[in-house]
Amino acid sequence: MQLVAFYRDRFEEHLLSGIKPREPRSLYDPVFYILKLGGKRLRPALTLFSSELFGGSYQNALGAALAIEYFHNFSLIHDDIMDEAPLRRGKPTVHKRWDLNTGILSGDVMLIEAYRFLEEYPPEIFKRLTTVFSKTAVEVCEGQQYDMDFETRDDVTVPEYLRMIEYKTAVLVGASVRMGAITAGASEEDQQNIYDFGLNLGIAFQLQDDYLDAFGDPKSFGKQVGGDIIENKKTYLYLKALEMGDEALDRELKDLFSIQPRQADKKIRRVKEIYSQTGATEDTKKAIASFTDRAFSCLEKIDLPVEKKEILMEFGKDLMGRKV
Amino acid sequence: MQLVAFYRDRFEEHLLSGIKPREPRSLYDPVFYILKLGGKRLRPALTLFSSELFGGSYQNALGAALAIEYFHNFSLIHDDIMDEAPLRRGKPTVHKRWDLNTGILSGDVMLIEAYRFLEEYPPEIFKRLTTVFSKTAVEVCEGQQYDMDFETRDDVTVPEYLRMIEYKTAVLVGASVRMGAITAGASEEDQQNIYDFGLNLGIAFQLQDDYLDAFGDPKSFGKQVGGDIIENKKTYLYLKALEMGDEALDRELKDLFSIQPRQADKKIRRVKEIYSQTGATEDTKKAIASFTDRAFSCLEKIDLPVEKKEILMEFGKDLMGRKV
Repeated sequence: MQLVAFYRDRFEEHLLSGIKPREPRSLYDPVFYILKLGGKRLRPALTLFSSELFGGSYQNALGAALAIEYFHNFSLIHDDIMDEAPLRRGKPTVHKRWDLNTGILSGDVMLIEAYRFLEEYPPEIFKRLTTVFSKTAVEVCEGQQYDMDFETRDDVTVPEYLRMIEYKTAVLVGASVRMGAITAGASEEDQQNIYDFGLNLGIAFQLQDDYLDAFGDPKSFGKQVGGDIIENKKTYLYLKALEMGDEALDRELKDLFSIQPRQADKKIRRVKEIYSQTGATEDTKKAIASFTDRAFSCLEKIDLPVEKKEILMEFGKDLMGRKV
Repeated sequence: MQLVAFYRDRFEEHLLSGIKPREPRSLYDPVFYILKLGGKRLRPALTLFSSELFGGSYQNALGAALAIEYFHNFSLIHDDIMDEAPLRRGKPTVHKRWDLNTGILSGDVMLIEAYRFLEEYPPEIFKRLTTVFSKTAVEVCEGQQYDMDFETRDDVTVPEYLRMIEYKTAVLVGASVRMGAITAGASEEDQQNIYDFGLNLGIAFQLQDDYLDAFGDPKSFGKQVGGDIIENKKTYLYLKALEMGDEALDRELKDLFSIQPRQADKKIRRVKEIYSQTGATEDTKKAIASFTDRAFSCLEKIDLPVEKKEILMEFGKDLMGRKV
């Protein structure tokens, strides 16, 4: 992770150096507010790293990295409105700190500014970057829409769920490394392989998030353990349990997911029992391992010295080895 | 207008031929809904016409025209949310027909799709088009922000107002013709001149809209005459009257703009009297003529046969000669 930390710091410096008050303040202050809330900057760091991996310089990938980070933060502003979230990284969300209209319009301008960071590249590279960026951006919107649709549907399937997290989360990780590779002039084949690496790692990471939400260590897991169960969220664990359980367990699980008791402990305990009893817990672990393996096998296909690829492998292992 | 009607029809055919149900329906149905609400399609028609003016083909400009129309409709969806508008072209607005979240996310995807229509162009042209498009898109957001800011400010100046309508409305007209010119490979100078034509005509058109709202013929003006006065909107007429009037008239006008009487007739009559008494009415007419003249003088600078430019001149005159 140390190397990724190096790129994260270079990105952070560059990002902050570009933040200067701009008129109309009511439009741009919220943009800078959310950017300054921080975050791990994993995606833009991966863009910089990927560029150097393919023989480019991280400096030349800073524009692409900014596009990725601006887009990510645009989606946070609009998602927070849609999810009615009051807090983001412990601070008020943009629509709470200001208002709904500010959240909408500042998000919009952030999405457009994301595109503009790509204008520093020559036409051929610009077009390749912009095309990947737009395709990814549409998919992220579709993922968010599927996620919202799932809330009111009771027939969501596991493949549908996998597509949702792929679109909502994983494609942007794939695009982050792919865009880094494009700035370095990597071949189409290498671009595809590094994209698939990011995509599969992104899916694995999201599935692990589902798993840790139920079975993680309360001390090291960032969020409240059992949060998804309290909110009746249809996660991979839940959908897999319905798929694998018998009729009685299915009914019980659905009943448990139709209530929101004030004291959730008992509900959480019983749901976790069902997850394990049906085999969903084991299956989720297997799926995480399987997507992680897939990510690593995509790396292997890339025509680069082993020692360079090992850094990404380490990064992936670190990411997936977190606080289980 | 007949020639513009020709291009409008070609655009409409192309637009509708691209509308096919797409998953997730909850995301894309609203996109097609607003596109099918109609509208004059003046902007995309101008893109097609501008392309042919500079020796290109309208077929080759269809992608750029779609980008313009998608962007325009994206901005309508989000503006309608911000303005809490229940109706658009006599039909429920997207956020009323569906809900807030649908309005936000369908608008977002429409903005991204607008960019994707430009991908049909080769890299050099693609980059020129995308750069103009992004710059314009940011300005439109800034214009909308200024417009919202003005509602709560009582020290708005005439130059500030002119910048607001330039950004909110006129730059997109300029971009429409400029992007058509780019698809035809027009020179940088011609691009700038045709842009300035569209920009100035756009400002003239918006000022005329302010004028007609107060002094238009109720039979031919599309909206309710006096609507801006009823809503206490700080238009060019209002700001100019404050600038030109003496202290007593200023105070009276500000008082009138602090009330919303159930019977607005008397208020409307008195405000219009003040507009004329202070000279604001005459000044507005002069400003409209001046921006229209500026638009035409930009046309003159373009190195093209007179008969070709005359068509745009006719278009401009038709547009500005409407229902006064």
